[in-house]
Amino acid sequence: MDLSLFDCVSPLDYRYYGDDPRMVELLAPYVTERAYIRSELEVEAAAARVLAKRGVCSQAVADEITRAIDLVDPEDVHAEDKRIHHDTRAMVNCLRDKVSDEAKPFVHLSLTSFDVKDTALALRMKRCAHEAVIPELLKLEQILIDLSLREARTLQMGRTHGQHAVPITFGFAVAQFVSRLGGRIEAIRAAADNLRGKISGAVGAYNASGLFFDDPLEFEREILAELGLEPSPGSTQIVEAEFVTDYMHALVSAFGVLANIADDMRNLQRTEIAEVGEKFEAEQVGSSTMPHKRNPWNFENVKSMWKVMVARMQTVYADQISEHQRDLTNSASQRFLPEIIVGLVNSTRRLQRIMGKLVTDADRMKKNFDMTADMVAAEPAYILLAAYGHPDAHEAVRRLTLEAQASGRPLGQLVDEAQDLAPYLSKFTDQQRALLRDTTLYLGAAVEKTEALCRMWAERLGLSASV
Amino acid sequence: MDLSLFDCVSPLDYRYYGDDPRMVELLAPYVTERAYIRSELEVEAAAARVLAKRGVCSQAVADEITRAIDLVDPEDVHAEDKRIHHDTRAMVNCLRDKVSDEAKPFVHLSLTSFDVKDTALALRMKRCAHEAVIPELLKLEQILIDLSLREARTLQMGRTHGQHAVPITFGFAVAQFVSRLGGRIEAIRAAADNLRGKISGAVGAYNASGLFFDDPLEFEREILAELGLEPSPGSTQIVEAEFVTDYMHALVSAFGVLANIADDMRNLQRTEIAEVGEKFEAEQVGSSTMPHKRNPWNFENVKSMWKVMVARMQTVYADQISEHQRDLTNSASQRFLPEIIVGLVNSTRRLQRIMGKLVTDADRMKKNFDMTADMVAAEPAYILLAAYGHPDAHEAVRRLTLEAQASGRPLGQLVDEAQDLAPYLSKFTDQQRALLRDTTLYLGAAVEKTEALCRMWAERLGLSASV
Amino acid sequence: MDLSLFDCVSPLDYRYYGDDPRMVELLAPYVTERAYIRSELEVEAAAARVLAKRGVCSQAVADEITRAIDLVDPEDVHAEDKRIHHDTRAMVNCLRDKVSDEAKPFVHLSLTSFDVKDTALALRMKRCAHEAVIPELLKLEQILIDLSLREARTLQMGRTHGQHAVPITFGFAVAQFVSRLGGRIEAIRAAADNLRGKISGAVGAYNASGLFFDDPLEFEREILAELGLEPSPGSTQIVEAEFVTDYMHALVSAFGVLANIADDMRNLQRTEIAEVGEKFEAEQVGSSTMPHKRNPWNFENVKSMWKVMVARMQTVYADQISEHQRDLTNSASQRFLPEIIVGLVNSTRRLQRIMGKLVTDADRMKKNFDMTADMVAAEPAYILLAAYGHPDAHEAVRRLTLEAQASGRPLGQLVDEAQDLAPYLSKFTDQQRALLRDTTLYLGAAVEKTEALCRMWAERLGLSASV
Amino acid sequence: MDLSLFDCVSPLDYRYYGDDPRMVELLAPYVTERAYIRSELEVEAAAARVLAKRGVCSQAVADEITRAIDLVDPEDVHAEDKRIHHDTRAMVNCLRDKVSDEAKPFVHLSLTSFDVKDTALALRMKRCAHEAVIPELLKLEQILIDLSLREARTLQMGRTHGQHAVPITFGFAVAQFVSRLGGRIEAIRAAADNLRGKISGAVGAYNASGLFFDDPLEFEREILAELGLEPSPGSTQIVEAEFVTDYMHALVSAFGVLANIADDMRNLQRTEIAEVGEKFEAEQVGSSTMPHKRNPWNFENVKSMWKVMVARMQTVYADQISEHQRDLTNSASQRFLPEIIVGLVNSTRRLQRIMGKLVTDADRMKKNFDMTADMVAAEPAYILLAAYGHPDAHEAVRRLTLEAQASGRPLGQLVDEAQDLAPYLSKFTDQQRALLRDTTLYLGAAVEKTEALCRMWAERLGLSASV
Repeated sequence: MDLSLFDCVSPLDYRYYGDDPRMVELLAPYVTERAYIRSELEVEAAAARVLAKRGVCSQAVADEITRAIDLVDPEDVHAEDKRIHHDTRAMVNCLRDKVSDEAKPFVHLSLTSFDVKDTALALRMKRCAHEAVIPELLKLEQILIDLSLREARTLQMGRTHGQHAVPITFGFAVAQFVSRLGGRIEAIRAAADNLRGKISGAVGAYNASGLFFDDPLEFEREILAELGLEPSPGSTQIVEAEFVTDYMHALVSAFGVLANIADDMRNLQRTEIAEVGEKFEAEQVGSSTMPHKRNPWNFENVKSMWKVMVARMQTVYADQISEHQRDLTNSASQRFLPEIIVGLVNSTRRLQRIMGKLVTDADRMKKNFDMTADMVAAEPAYILLAAYGHPDAHEAVRRLTLEAQASGRPLGQLVDEAQDLAPYLSKFTDQQRALLRDTTLYLGAAVEKTEALCRMWAERLGLSASV
Repeated sequence: MDLSLFDCVSPLDYRYYGDDPRMVELLAPYVTERAYIRSELEVEAAAARVLAKRGVCSQAVADEITRAIDLVDPEDVHAEDKRIHHDTRAMVNCLRDKVSDEAKPFVHLSLTSFDVKDTALALRMKRCAHEAVIPELLKLEQILIDLSLREARTLQMGRTHGQHAVPITFGFAVAQFVSRLGGRIEAIRAAADNLRGKISGAVGAYNASGLFFDDPLEFEREILAELGLEPSPGSTQIVEAEFVTDYMHALVSAFGVLANIADDMRNLQRTEIAEVGEKFEAEQVGSSTMPHKRNPWNFENVKSMWKVMVARMQTVYADQISEHQRDLTNSASQRFLPEIIVGLVNSTRRLQRIMGKLVTDADRMKKNFDMTADMVAAEPAYILLAAYGHPDAHEAVRRLTLEAQASGRPLGQLVDEAQDLAPYLSKFTDQQRALLRDTTLYLGAAVEKTEALCRMWAERLGLSASV
Repeated sequence: MDLSLFDCVSPLDYRYYGDDPRMVELLAPYVTERAYIRSELEVEAAAARVLAKRGVCSQAVADEITRAIDLVDPEDVHAEDKRIHHDTRAMVNCLRDKVSDEAKPFVHLSLTSFDVKDTALALRMKRCAHEAVIPELLKLEQILIDLSLREARTLQMGRTHGQHAVPITFGFAVAQFVSRLGGRIEAIRAAADNLRGKISGAVGAYNASGLFFDDPLEFEREILAELGLEPSPGSTQIVEAEFVTDYMHALVSAFGVLANIADDMRNLQRTEIAEVGEKFEAEQVGSSTMPHKRNPWNFENVKSMWKVMVARMQTVYADQISEHQRDLTNSASQRFLPEIIVGLVNSTRRLQRIMGKLVTDADRMKKNFDMTADMVAAEPAYILLAAYGHPDAHEAVRRLTLEAQASGRPLGQLVDEAQDLAPYLSKFTDQQRALLRDTTLYLGAAVEKTEALCRMWAERLGLSASV
Repeated sequence: MDLSLFDCVSPLDYRYYGDDPRMVELLAPYVTERAYIRSELEVEAAAARVLAKRGVCSQAVADEITRAIDLVDPEDVHAEDKRIHHDTRAMVNCLRDKVSDEAKPFVHLSLTSFDVKDTALALRMKRCAHEAVIPELLKLEQILIDLSLREARTLQMGRTHGQHAVPITFGFAVAQFVSRLGGRIEAIRAAADNLRGKISGAVGAYNASGLFFDDPLEFEREILAELGLEPSPGSTQIVEAEFVTDYMHALVSAFGVLANIADDMRNLQRTEIAEVGEKFEAEQVGSSTMPHKRNPWNFENVKSMWKVMVARMQTVYADQISEHQRDLTNSASQRFLPEIIVGLVNSTRRLQRIMGKLVTDADRMKKNFDMTADMVAAEPAYILLAAYGHPDAHEAVRRLTLEAQASGRPLGQLVDEAQDLAPYLSKFTDQQRALLRDTTLYLGAAVEKTEALCRMWAERLGLSASV
């Protein structure tokens, strides 16, 4: 059955995924219903191959089953599911229909539904991390590294509380995200590699497989090895929830970094700040009635999508609880898990596009810097005065800042000329004295740190850190 | 562009909505992308009609625009949107393409995107409440009323903390949900009727419509009246978030009642309790390897879907915050709102099916009751002893319960025979004394309350309360 | 037992409530453990009085019990609770200790713990709304009305997406919050007035009270009437969760409005915008190392507290589910509910302080306005051109805005001089033409709407709307 | 200032922590306001010591400052904070008051508030994990291991969907939690050890420390090494949020395992199941009006506390976003983080108490098992029939289960006698045939797996696995 995009209810399907061929190409093997069924079939085939290895069925039967998984049509599985109200059994029936009578008994032999389902979930999620999520995040990471290095020396006012603080460079501001995103990529990789399967039967005690094998745990290990997975240590009917929970946490916390990038950029794009901008395409309409506007709508979209996906962790945590050897109250909810990936990848790719051609305005950064450049002297003045022995440097400088605001005279100059500070000022080095007058010198290790962070993460992640 | 169901990523699209023709029939006019665009077009037509009424354009132009909205193809809107990256403007362009040059200027005249979008959202959500959500909930409510009345006198042990407490009837247990669901239906209705539109322009100050009209607030009121809506009092570019927030709260809190029903029923369906059961269809498979099982999977599904949807309130609350006259960080997230409706209606209809043919086992209820029937005497014994002047009745009865447990003798009998209680027992009425021996008499007002609740809610909601 | 503030773990106790005498004075009667126990005692007294009215005990006994509730020491209740592990029974035991042997049997007679607890909760929450939450919100509302009216004509650039849009006034911006907060005050009042009690016994079937009275529902109604409450229609052991859920929703959604105010104000306080500011006290330290900074830390605190409290709705929704006639999994969690109130009132009072002496800078607003004043002409130009028949006004104006940006010439002038637009411009009224050149005229109904909103809400809420 | 317990608003302060001397003893060094201030003072002292090592001040000054931190009274810090509205500066002022004029300038020299605050947070949280959280979880883990091993061979019916499935042992059911909790303990340890500090100044660029040192990153590393911490790679004013986010995730996901234990146990304690029970103390009151009840209120409390704490992850995730080099909207919210620890430790200790003396009823487990013992044969019958070549074994067995239910005859017998199955049954081994008749033999690897899991986790966590 086909559905027009426009008859979908999910904005992912009609807009953020289904209407974007690149998203489909990238994620379809992992996040659709077709992928869901396909991955279950792969588990069935793996099980058949191990049955053959162990002599329970012939290699020919295993080969036949392995080939047959390509023949199962999801549409038939749905039809069968509607008839019998059991989706795994429906998939099994459809697979059995595609094999000879000889092979039929060996399809799903000794398996329970959730041997297949949970193993298939781990399989899809792990592959998806390695084939789609991490590569896309790495592309964004490379863009951030390039931007950070390019702007490593572009003076910008550091801001805390939305207020001017002390100098940094724009590259330094970006390097924060290089580092945070780098850390999350490693976290996603670790969580993905720790996803587990299980072939331990209806309650986890290997009751069924124990009918055939003296070493049912080894049987489990062999099937999972076919799929590149390891068994979870303490499965019941299902894999312990924590492996998927950790994975979702890694994804959602990575999304938090994207949301922070988006917020920072749209704030820097405010009319009054205007230090960066989304590049607009020629045909693009900024507003339906205010054609001059350049709205940071992509950054807004990332923030919005984050708000959608971060809330879903509540469902993930709720799904940790499953009664006894399992209840099914995580069944519908678990089907929504891939949506978190779709949202994350959509926002990642959006940021790739926008950050990759981010318009930066160094002149505006300098102009904004100059608004409070004089006042920046307060911090080094206070700290040096204190270091050189002033008993209450903080208060002394605070009073001068009030005077500077009242008089309009530069704070650095007021400090320099303050009679009562002279005994301390005389101990300042020339360099220290210079930066009271020219606060663009008060950059600390901003440039070095920026470059070092970019190099470190490029190395850890196999990326490039050449400018 | 078409998408196979199996290529969707949303379980709503491929399973819980898109694969269920009745769900599609019921909800398509409100929850799909097609409905989204359609409702925006309706706002455009309403605006055109009011322009005509006010002599800004001719009635013929308004009629032409009104007719043209049927001609706009969502696919064209998407294509235009991809070109210009502005979905409302895309819709407007497509509508303009379908009208004469004379009419073109009057399409969207004086409107801003969110005049259209937010008004259209209110329109869809309000209609959807009245045409789909409430009718479906009412059907479930009727089923609950019928069940409650049918079982009004079926003895069941009341349970608190999962422990036997004192007697009720199964109809009484159901009546709780009749009342709670009835209350939520009224809450949804009230919140839906309080959804608001806005035609106040780009920042809410009627800058644009004020160019044409001395009474732009009246102009707003007229357009909205065409759509059966009232204006929000303090819109900016957008309608104040609280109206939609309240509506979503009403929906999600109604879902909480469904989840509670589901939890109670699946607990009553436990093998050891077995007082109720989902009716199984002949072809249905209970488990892929345990064919004898009768899993409460529909109830589990309702609980699971609730876990999905309740978490989304965090996104709804986050969307209350929009900077200044608005930012767009609620744009993607707001697109997901209809999914809450889809989930709720899916679970409502699921409960209709299951509760409508719920299998109840009065014998088992009685058998379970009998497990602790004797101990039930503790409460009335303690209360009556206290009322008749025993200085520490609670402690006296507690000690007898320990004796009853140790000796296996009925508590009521032990009370009856206790020497030290005799002075108080002599004051008991015959009826009071009787229920110490036969605790099935200790039903309080269970039956009367059940019937009264059902009658009250049937009356308030226009339903039937005949057995 | 006493605890130093500094040995508390809750930031409410050691900082936001317990360290603020006004907060304590205001909220102590409703939100502390002492208040918790006290309100339960009040329910016991009310029940005793109704027992007397009905002749079950003497009026003297009822009076004695009513007086005795002042004598119960929470410390004793805790000690007893530790002994018997049942906090309501502990309270009852302590109360019985304070009355004569004659009165003892009538304490708690026919009641179950949750008759007392849930009724007491409704009592505290309702009173707290009327005595503390609403009065404090009304004070803030009055401050917002005053500010809005004072600034009703102060020109400000309207902003959407953080970008300049079209003109408003600062008073208009504030009026949005007058209206939204006004709406939430009404919502809180309605939800508080709808809080319900229950005296329906251990499972809601009036089993116990039915031992004494033919009309146990009337008995319930009488006790609750003593406390100014109505019974919930369908209680089990507990009041149906929806009444408290709605109340918490009203509180949390009101908090969302405060958070939005805070976000807007701290954005307007950014160094580059600087249109408003928190008034700083003489002694206040802005930053430990940057003494010149004026951080919007109060606004930040409000946002932060909102983030704390909004998440708690997930717990509230989870508590809607209680198995059968109740389970106790809402017991600990329900104890945390008053914290939401404490957080809300703390933030409300914080905003009172800051908004009450908000520093506004009309010059800076005008200066910011002027940054894009010319471009504002785009919207009226496009709309009027369209209205006067230009077939593609949006595109025509969009091109002129690009020219204006490139040339630095005012957009209004470019429009005025554009040859191809002349046929349409000739139809403009003088007033329409004037505002292309002077966009401060393009204010729509901003001033009128501001004043009307303030008047309306002042009237609905019993506040003043005089400037 | 002192607060009576009864005047606290937080149930942690008045009930779950402050009223429990063991909780206070265990956690006070990490979770109170006193601990908060203390840990900040420790950072100040560490900084002073490194200043001395580097010759900026004398060792005597560093020693003086280190000693002085014991002299600072939190009460004074609060008083100063109220005066200057800056809590770190208040702490610094108080510390300066306790040292000589010579030492004063070196207090807080070159540090910014959040160098101190975020480092102190990491310090407290890391210590708390190692000194309190993990030890308490390990005690619970040991209790679970002991219970699991003790009950390794106690036959219990495995349950899925609340329905009887196939056999396990009760020890096997517990082993699931041994494994899940073991995994979470390791996750908490890893996340705690990965908590980071920072001494990188007001915006993370080492602007201030760069005034004194050529190697400010090394200076940072030295101070943090004094405290057993490493620097975060990309701090701004604050440590990147992800380290704390991961830690909170580890805690909250561990809580999910406790909640699952609690749910399972209270379900097994249902009157109709009654396989386990909380041990009741002699004096304990089960219900205020139903003295015979044995409510699983401790398990309910754990579930309830989990509902409180799991929701808080939304706040944690929201706090990942901090604008530019930081905003302060995570300040109040971060103060609530220790409450998650308090809730978790409270529930951990509660489960220690209850699980440590859990009453198990092997007879009842067997009795419950026997309810469906016959039907258990369905799974092995179906699987073996399939394995021995039956073309539709699932359907064949399903039909026999219906017959068994209708006739009341054991399923195993029906299978044994079924004519059409004879050809396949003849291939069964004796052992396979035996378990159709005696399904207690159908235990799979339940016992072996139980023992192996307990041994593995005991070894990984340094616990004992002797029965």
